[in-house]
Amino acid sequence: MKLLIINGPNLNLLGLREPGLYGSETLDGINARLAEQAAGYGIALDFFQSNHEGELVDALQKAGRECDGVILNAAAYTHTSVALRDAALAIGKPVVEVHLTNPAAREDFRHRSLLAGAATGSICGFGAQSYELALHWFHIRNTSMNV
Amino acid sequence: MKLLIINGPNLNLLGLREPGLYGSETLDGINARLAEQAAGYGIALDFFQSNHEGELVDALQKAGRECDGVILNAAAYTHTSVALRDAALAIGKPVVEVHLTNPAAREDFRHRSLLAGAATGSICGFGAQSYELALHWFHIRNTSMNV
Amino acid sequence: MKLLIINGPNLNLLGLREPGLYGSETLDGINARLAEQAAGYGIALDFFQSNHEGELVDALQKAGRECDGVILNAAAYTHTSVALRDAALAIGKPVVEVHLTNPAAREDFRHRSLLAGAATGSICGFGAQSYELALHWFHIRNTSMNV
Amino acid sequence: MKLLIINGPNLNLLGLREPGLYGSETLDGINARLAEQAAGYGIALDFFQSNHEGELVDALQKAGRECDGVILNAAAYTHTSVALRDAALAIGKPVVEVHLTNPAAREDFRHRSLLAGAATGSICGFGAQSYELALHWFHIRNTSMNV
Amino acid sequence: MKLLIINGPNLNLLGLREPGLYGSETLDGINARLAEQAAGYGIALDFFQSNHEGELVDALQKAGRECDGVILNAAAYTHTSVALRDAALAIGKPVVEVHLTNPAAREDFRHRSLLAGAATGSICGFGAQSYELALHWFHIRNTSMNV
Amino acid sequence: MKLLIINGPNLNLLGLREPGLYGSETLDGINARLAEQAAGYGIALDFFQSNHEGELVDALQKAGRECDGVILNAAAYTHTSVALRDAALAIGKPVVEVHLTNPAAREDFRHRSLLAGAATGSICGFGAQSYELALHWFHIRNTSMNV
Amino acid sequence: MKLLIINGPNLNLLGLREPGLYGSETLDGINARLAEQAAGYGIALDFFQSNHEGELVDALQKAGRECDGVILNAAAYTHTSVALRDAALAIGKPVVEVHLTNPAAREDFRHRSLLAGAATGSICGFGAQSYELALHWFHIRNTSMNV
Amino acid sequence: MKLLIINGPNLNLLGLREPGLYGSETLDGINARLAEQAAGYGIALDFFQSNHEGELVDALQKAGRECDGVILNAAAYTHTSVALRDAALAIGKPVVEVHLTNPAAREDFRHRSLLAGAATGSICGFGAQSYELALHWFHIRNTSMNV
Amino acid sequence: MKLLIINGPNLNLLGLREPGLYGSETLDGINARLAEQAAGYGIALDFFQSNHEGELVDALQKAGRECDGVILNAAAYTHTSVALRDAALAIGKPVVEVHLTNPAAREDFRHRSLLAGAATGSICGFGAQSYELALHWFHIRNTSMNV
Amino acid sequence: MKLLIINGPNLNLLGLREPGLYGSETLDGINARLAEQAAGYGIALDFFQSNHEGELVDALQKAGRECDGVILNAAAYTHTSVALRDAALAIGKPVVEVHLTNPAAREDFRHRSLLAGAATGSICGFGAQSYELALHWFHIRNTSMNV
Amino acid sequence: MKLLIINGPNLNLLGLREPGLYGSETLDGINARLAEQAAGYGIALDFFQSNHEGELVDALQKAGRECDGVILNAAAYTHTSVALRDAALAIGKPVVEVHLTNPAAREDFRHRSLLAGAATGSICGFGAQSYELALHWFHIRNTSMNV
Amino acid sequence: MKLLIINGPNLNLLGLREPGLYGSETLDGINARLAEQAAGYGIALDFFQSNHEGELVDALQKAGRECDGVILNAAAYTHTSVALRDAALAIGKPVVEVHLTNPAAREDFRHRSLLAGAATGSICGFGAQSYELALHWFHIRNTSMNV
Repeated sequence: MKLLIINGPNLNLLGLREPGLYGSETLDGINARLAEQAAGYGIALDFFQSNHEGELVDALQKAGRECDGVILNAAAYTHTSVALRDAALAIGKPVVEVHLTNPAAREDFRHRSLLAGAATGSICGFGAQSYELALHWFHIRNTSMNV
Repeated sequence: MKLLIINGPNLNLLGLREPGLYGSETLDGINARLAEQAAGYGIALDFFQSNHEGELVDALQKAGRECDGVILNAAAYTHTSVALRDAALAIGKPVVEVHLTNPAAREDFRHRSLLAGAATGSICGFGAQSYELALHWFHIRNTSMNV
Repeated sequence: MKLLIINGPNLNLLGLREPGLYGSETLDGINARLAEQAAGYGIALDFFQSNHEGELVDALQKAGRECDGVILNAAAYTHTSVALRDAALAIGKPVVEVHLTNPAAREDFRHRSLLAGAATGSICGFGAQSYELALHWFHIRNTSMNV
Repeated sequence: MKLLIINGPNLNLLGLREPGLYGSETLDGINARLAEQAAGYGIALDFFQSNHEGELVDALQKAGRECDGVILNAAAYTHTSVALRDAALAIGKPVVEVHLTNPAAREDFRHRSLLAGAATGSICGFGAQSYELALHWFHIRNTSMNV
Repeated sequence: MKLLIINGPNLNLLGLREPGLYGSETLDGINARLAEQAAGYGIALDFFQSNHEGELVDALQKAGRECDGVILNAAAYTHTSVALRDAALAIGKPVVEVHLTNPAAREDFRHRSLLAGAATGSICGFGAQSYELALHWFHIRNTSMNV
Repeated sequence: MKLLIINGPNLNLLGLREPGLYGSETLDGINARLAEQAAGYGIALDFFQSNHEGELVDALQKAGRECDGVILNAAAYTHTSVALRDAALAIGKPVVEVHLTNPAAREDFRHRSLLAGAATGSICGFGAQSYELALHWFHIRNTSMNV
Repeated sequence: MKLLIINGPNLNLLGLREPGLYGSETLDGINARLAEQAAGYGIALDFFQSNHEGELVDALQKAGRECDGVILNAAAYTHTSVALRDAALAIGKPVVEVHLTNPAAREDFRHRSLLAGAATGSICGFGAQSYELALHWFHIRNTSMNV
Repeated sequence: MKLLIINGPNLNLLGLREPGLYGSETLDGINARLAEQAAGYGIALDFFQSNHEGELVDALQKAGRECDGVILNAAAYTHTSVALRDAALAIGKPVVEVHLTNPAAREDFRHRSLLAGAATGSICGFGAQSYELALHWFHIRNTSMNV
Repeated sequence: MKLLIINGPNLNLLGLREPGLYGSETLDGINARLAEQAAGYGIALDFFQSNHEGELVDALQKAGRECDGVILNAAAYTHTSVALRDAALAIGKPVVEVHLTNPAAREDFRHRSLLAGAATGSICGFGAQSYELALHWFHIRNTSMNV
Repeated sequence: MKLLIINGPNLNLLGLREPGLYGSETLDGINARLAEQAAGYGIALDFFQSNHEGELVDALQKAGRECDGVILNAAAYTHTSVALRDAALAIGKPVVEVHLTNPAAREDFRHRSLLAGAATGSICGFGAQSYELALHWFHIRNTSMNV
Repeated sequence: MKLLIINGPNLNLLGLREPGLYGSETLDGINARLAEQAAGYGIALDFFQSNHEGELVDALQKAGRECDGVILNAAAYTHTSVALRDAALAIGKPVVEVHLTNPAAREDFRHRSLLAGAATGSICGFGAQSYELALHWFHIRNTSMNV
Repeated sequence: MKLLIINGPNLNLLGLREPGLYGSETLDGINARLAEQAAGYGIALDFFQSNHEGELVDALQKAGRECDGVILNAAAYTHTSVALRDAALAIGKPVVEVHLTNPAAREDFRHRSLLAGAATGSICGFGAQSYELALHWFHIRNTSMNV
């Protein structure tokens, strides 16, 4: 089983960007811990980050061909991108939407998620643990399907 | 560590109610599996279900006094209850919002969550596994805080 | 054939409450006439009134187990309760929505019925005769299905 | 006592038009049964159908002069016609709004009824039985007024 | 100079229709007085009333070919008809919008006038005198243009 | 009979201000012609112009005590002033709303008239002739009431 | 004279709940001071608190039968309950709406009060003194009516 | 193969009506060219124009019985007619929506098309060539279906 | 302790203006009673009324320099004035918003209070007693702060 | 004559992506047929597809310099991209908007086309034939301009 | 060259009013520095501040007659005054809108600027330097026009 | 001190693109003048233009690491990009928003700036001089901070 972790715009700045809001851990730090967790589950992980909506669509499509699922933090594009929604629906693989913070507790324009309606499920508000839970879901899904 | 699992209106009908949408497992079945999972984590679980908004508020308040956290599927009240939102903010314990389905992929009136802005985090769309992930979060939180 | 007549908040005050709007007949008076009408149809009637949304949900669920249909005047909850809507959809029995007055001719916040989309049909504006027509529908439905 | 049954646009296609939604009975079939039902009540019925908003307004006005009440399925004009609303208010006779389906369970633009606020009462969602109930209401109204 | 007075739906009921709101004078009575007033100005008047949006469009088009201007009380169609708006813009003659009552002081759905943006000017709230003022405007316009 | 002509903000610039929109005649010119017209009717006119919402309210109140009616072009305050609306309702004299242009054919924020619902009637779109028609209405009203 | 003080959801947590916002005094403390104040006025007080919308409706109805007025802090239900609004209108006794904080200075969903339109008057933003002012009003009303 | 070309309100004025916007060609001129084009395709054409919404509904229904498809320029009714939408869905034949201009580049009230959701496809903005393209589509559809 | 009572537009007409709505007491009458009440409390009162938004802003600013608090009935400006809101926030003294009637029970445009969010508290619906309660609040605040 | 066919996000997945909605033909297949059709017209075609909004803007600009027109299926960006709209307006060449499906018959967020107002014309709902019709339009435009 | 600096409501309180938001410099201090800067540019400055919308309109009109341009901080009236907008358009001189803070980063009701659409340009968010930049613009405009 | 001038989509077409709206000067021309101006201030300038939202985000992030501030004309992305807003907030350097035209005087969809709330300040409507003023601000800020 192979998953792609996709991170959207400005998440490459984690650790530097508004640490009071997003925490002080870097994206590399989060990814390292996820890789370790995935290894424990026997799951292979790939990582991709981009500030470009189009590259995120490309990555989703590639994951549709090469992976068994996607963990997607679309960040700002969550609220504005129909293209990512269409891609998530098109690829025929489970896509789990994650967020570090809880968009519902922030500005009004973050209350609408164009992506959520196309995702298998959504996990938000747990900081970097949102990714861990998403990864854990692929693990228990894997386990339950193999029973 | 002790948690309360609170389920809102019509979730007592799980297994009977629109199984194409909500699955064929009963709430008792879900709870039994959660109890087993919690035992593995060394976490004590209490369960509460009610169709009454007021009883759910009461339960949240009681959990604030007696438990270390809440997993809350407020079901229909998610979209209409300011009282539950206020209670979640008032009790000073982590409240994780869960849903079996993904409200963002359903009717318009389910797109607004009054509760989400008051929850520590939200997990939705994974069926009964939404509860399992929430429980898992309390476990890893527990673990990381004890480090 | 057995039906449950469910009446929602403040309908216990009929006869006293704004009689210019709701008429001078009490709920007991209405129910007595309905019982007589039902007897003529060979239909058994149960009656339930509550000011509590949760008790109304409970009653709908109980009717799903024990009755062949429901006549529901959800009164104020018509416009605010997703829980009642979900219950009406969950129980798998016909639910007929009735209103004494015509909500469309009253305040703006009464123009939205969360319930209507989940009801088999709606009858409103005929005063207590709204109930009689709903009961009559169960009768002609019964008759036509037995043909 | 004499009533006019007015049917609006596309109801002449009943039986042919989207039978999964509107049923397989023709308007003539419905009207024949209503005539029989009315005869049993000692009520005379006239029938009118038109796809023209203006002709429906004319018919309402004529009914105001010649009939004791109207059963009106305005179909699509329910949602767009202020002219029919004004006519219903102008004629000084009871106008009962009926619908085969439940508009509240259909597209958003069918959720607004300009007509409902001007009708004596509304009955919807019972298929052709919506007309029967409306007719029955005129019967019991007649009876109760003659007591 | 020749003008067409066009009256829309339900205005043929003037005198009978909600006299507390619209007055007790009939449309024929109003028209007779307008004819007399017009004669004093040396203006020829034609009159047209219909409950049909399409016939009102036809009448506007005919006035475009045969008259020097139109006084139009579109009544209910004021708020719903793009067709009348387009016709008023198409005919290249002055169209004065009149209303007996003041729509801004009535129901919300009467606050939007699709027609107003296409009319030369609007006069409302003066009862039958709204027509007289519109006619007077054609007179003083005539006079000032002939100077 | 004595009337007050009240003109609101920027109308003192008539003749200079966007003449393509508002015409080249000055307010003094308009007022001179109105005075002449009023003299023909045996009506006394007072004139008041101000750019201050409060002074316009004061003027309306003064007219309530000293005059028999008001012709009011509230200009920009038409769309923003509840105070003028309240004053128009408070003074117990007829207030006729006039506009040079047709607000419905201009920017969106000019489509809402807070004033219209409180005015006896409204006349707009006829340039300076809007005032003449309003004055004429007081004349014919006077005449018809004296019959 | 006897009044009922009704407190809605989560107000039983006063003193514990977000004290920066709601103050550190408990509901019992507030009630004790109100009882003392009422004694000075010769007014008898009853107290009721519930987190259940339905019990609050019941309490309002009971007050309608047994008391001379109600001081109601509906808390979260202020913004969502048509049932409480209907009850307040139904009971035929003065109902004074109070709030500790000023809802207009808080989240958007607290800006709408379904209750306010049915209350005799509203007092908000004075902390526990809001209740004292409401009680004082019943006192001066009492006094002025007895003159 | 036989098609009906239906034109809605004010399109009979083409050539005269705002030629800067709609062009200088008359509807007869357009129809003549379409007839010639259709002859080249071996398609029979009928033409219908009306300013009446009801007649357009009638025409659509007739085309459902007698033709193989419809090219419909509903003009102003595009934005206001649920009746035409229902008819287009009811007749079970392809309906192609055409417009001379591009409604999306015009007034706000032309941005909503009630019809578009019921049409097989839409072609707008190409002047009279919009019809030619619609006709061409029936031709290539015909050709591809006959292969 | 010195307070300024500020009254906004049209309140100088109290007693004359729509007495069914606002009562028959004049503003002078109300102020005389307030002065007497204040004397009993040992509070000095100043009074100011204006129909001018700007003068009300000036008065608020002056009160900020010379008084210990303000009782403000902004009347119509409640709903339209950001300037008064800004002034209330700027002056650093408690501002109590009062209204004679209950705006929530009146027209839609009175449901929004720009001022409320900037006021210490709001009291509305008690007629002239709204002022008395506001004054009483300054008294009990004074007393409790001096304890 | 040279045209650029621009396809937006996820259209590279045609044939694989939700074939029930978008058909089973690949984009290469469509393009091959368009090339053949264009050859018959003596028109040269270039093809471009990208998931990147910016690359689509670049392509439009390049077409503005090198081509005589554009056929643009902006897919998801249709509803969210002001940049594409601005580019379409900037390049001074005809841009024809095409869609495989009819956005008006799909989700609400697809009902708004930012692009449509900047396109010469729009063709949607005909599957791959939408492109063929757009190409045909360039052909007949070419022909008619060369006459 | 002569400019008028117009400051709106509550700006006379600068230095005292919410200094955390608006800074600690007084309006006199700002004006003194602007006068010095203007002297360096050879520009004469006049200053005007008022809390009265009407006086600001008067000032704009006067500037239209006597000055070459206006720097306008309309403060609260920015969001509510159509009268200032109309005046800015009427006077035929450049009007530069300035703000100390950035309204887009503040409350929702400050996001709408009625004035912006009528201003030559807008400068906001730079504190007192917003005025300096506006003045600098008149300088470079002056210089570039004199080249 | 080093600044980055970032220009968004279609600004590379300046001089060619709708010159009546955007002027005839090219972006290179503007940049050359800005470079000269900056040299006079002792400020180093870098320039970046892209039609890609993602590249603009990248550029903002790079400026966060390498520059002392940014002048950003996000053009079309101003109204649709949450990603740019987040980047502007994340980089911890002043970002000045500039526009050639005044978006508030253009189409509705340009009235919302997602960016403005995240910018230090905004300057719009002065054509290329908007950039010059932004640059001038960095200069005076520099100067005043060095005092």
